[in-house]
Amino acid sequence: MTINKIPHQMTGVILTGHGGLEKLQLRTDLPVPTPGKGEVLIKVGASGVNNTDINTRIGWYSKGVTGQTNAGAADGFETANDDDASWSGIPLGLPRIQGADCCGEIVAVGEQVNPDRIGQRVLVRSMQSVPTEDEFSCITFGSECDGSFAQYTKTRAIEAFTIQSSLSDAELASFPCAYSTAENMIDRAAVKANETVLITGASGGVGSAAIQLAKRRQANVIAICGAEKMEQVKALGADKVIQRGQSLTDILANDSVDVVIDLVAGDQWAELLDLLRRGGRYAVAGAIAGPIVELDVRTLYLKDLSFFGCTYQPRSVFENLIQYIERGEIKPLIAKTYPLQQISEAQQDFMAKKFIGKLVLLPPR
Amino acid sequence: MTINKIPHQMTGVILTGHGGLEKLQLRTDLPVPTPGKGEVLIKVGASGVNNTDINTRIGWYSKGVTGQTNAGAADGFETANDDDASWSGIPLGLPRIQGADCCGEIVAVGEQVNPDRIGQRVLVRSMQSVPTEDEFSCITFGSECDGSFAQYTKTRAIEAFTIQSSLSDAELASFPCAYSTAENMIDRAAVKANETVLITGASGGVGSAAIQLAKRRQANVIAICGAEKMEQVKALGADKVIQRGQSLTDILANDSVDVVIDLVAGDQWAELLDLLRRGGRYAVAGAIAGPIVELDVRTLYLKDLSFFGCTYQPRSVFENLIQYIERGEIKPLIAKTYPLQQISEAQQDFMAKKFIGKLVLLPPR
Repeated sequence: MTINKIPHQMTGVILTGHGGLEKLQLRTDLPVPTPGKGEVLIKVGASGVNNTDINTRIGWYSKGVTGQTNAGAADGFETANDDDASWSGIPLGLPRIQGADCCGEIVAVGEQVNPDRIGQRVLVRSMQSVPTEDEFSCITFGSECDGSFAQYTKTRAIEAFTIQSSLSDAELASFPCAYSTAENMIDRAAVKANETVLITGASGGVGSAAIQLAKRRQANVIAICGAEKMEQVKALGADKVIQRGQSLTDILANDSVDVVIDLVAGDQWAELLDLLRRGGRYAVAGAIAGPIVELDVRTLYLKDLSFFGCTYQPRSVFENLIQYIERGEIKPLIAKTYPLQQISEAQQDFMAKKFIGKLVLLPPR
Repeated sequence: MTINKIPHQMTGVILTGHGGLEKLQLRTDLPVPTPGKGEVLIKVGASGVNNTDINTRIGWYSKGVTGQTNAGAADGFETANDDDASWSGIPLGLPRIQGADCCGEIVAVGEQVNPDRIGQRVLVRSMQSVPTEDEFSCITFGSECDGSFAQYTKTRAIEAFTIQSSLSDAELASFPCAYSTAENMIDRAAVKANETVLITGASGGVGSAAIQLAKRRQANVIAICGAEKMEQVKALGADKVIQRGQSLTDILANDSVDVVIDLVAGDQWAELLDLLRRGGRYAVAGAIAGPIVELDVRTLYLKDLSFFGCTYQPRSVFENLIQYIERGEIKPLIAKTYPLQQISEAQQDFMAKKFIGKLVLLPPR
């Protein structure tokens, strides 16, 4: 292992249990991780705030919870069960340093990693493979392992992707989790040029990424968001913007949409299926308005629909994303940056959904 | 057009409206159809009884209906709306000669069809393409056009597939609708050798076909059916048979099934998703236990599931089916044959589900 002026202790934020914001604890005495065989140590430049960090904290993934994410976002859910409250259904190891997005610099390498990697600027893949298990096994950086809400973090070397870019750390840290989630959905649904793609939750991190990534494929994008964000969502490239809460089938013709990219679910879910044409595709990676929906199985089969649940991400998705960034095909969208110490304020702002674009945390240098 | 000893009138059964068995009317004075440009006239040798004929008669496809098929199978549904009571959602032209399965002999051809086709033994594709419309447009033989519950029928020449087989007309007529539906589901779900496939409604026409077709791909088959049919379903090749109504998750491990082939839906539907492994596939073409189910969208996305609604069938499915039959890779399964005049008795027996295998109607010679 090669070490290069690395301190023994660092500042970071640990999650001490499922619950409210009080479960996040700022510490200045956390041990700096030691990269093991095949691993690299990264000095974190910036890390984004994501739904998945909050969902995990509040225990929303527990099957005991059936409400909207926001209902418990500040205080947690009483009905959450600690045993299945992680997204993978496996109890989380606690305490845990969360943080799914990471831009930083490799400052040390473990055994069997080329020391030439020291000094490389990298983006860490948020949804990482588990090499010893079956094809779909994966872990989220900052969930099943410690993530980037700290000055240093470690990861397997193959999950740290070098990037050549003139963007800032904060800008680069805005991409990994949200954009790879969105690109994976678009890829699973095989969005093609000239297709009509409807995106729910379009002002959120994944939704706004999906607008850019669908436009990148020359699709025709219809975006749904709150009234106060319609202008900004339009500016992101959406061809048509619909105000959240309006009856979609009043505005759009049945059978007029090729692909739905859904992060919302909730009461309006059945309308999404009415909008899809025969043979249409529905991709989902979130359910912020509530996960329990009523499905008429006849709609699924008589319209030859395909539904794609999107969590696992093949490596190619992140490889492609790096290329899109390096070629300037997608733009970062930063709403605000905060010192890491202000994580509670950042998460409260995130939950209040006043911003379009990412909120990014900057650890002390 | 070439005509060869064709009478002007024929015996057949017309559907006069949506409702009970009394809407089926036996007639001996129906006009023998005249094959138009690109069409062939077929002397019907045998035609199978299918769920889709009954669903159409009783109006089950109407969104006003949310119950089990059998609740209205004899008498129809009061809540059915004639305007959307066909499977395609487009009002059916009535009166209509139903009958989705047809084995017969070409006895005349219309313009632009090679007269050499006269004398050919054919199977008619049940789910036919609509050449002028988009990719997924299709019609069911005997639903949007007249079918085979008569002595003669006509169809587009390209939908009448020649077949070389030593099987009887009744045996061959047992294949088209059920087996192409099952093969399309298996094909959409991309069933591979050594995968575990769970089949609901396994004693029905499509379910029993799916057993054979999944075994043909060397999959491991788990079949669900009523207690009284378990022995027979096992004899069809299922590796494991589970009695309907038992808790599936008591018997099978969660995340242990690669593919679900579902014709049933209903109360047990959510259990099917629990059984699927991460990345598992769910294909559906029926909902005999009730179409309205509750979906936890988190299960869909956190397990990376794919759902495939299966109605449209690409032409390759039927082409492959003809080859499986000609190579003897699948076996016909006839429970009973009836003279066409006894269609009501045949449909009552079908609805009573006392048999495994097809009930087949034989028109008067």
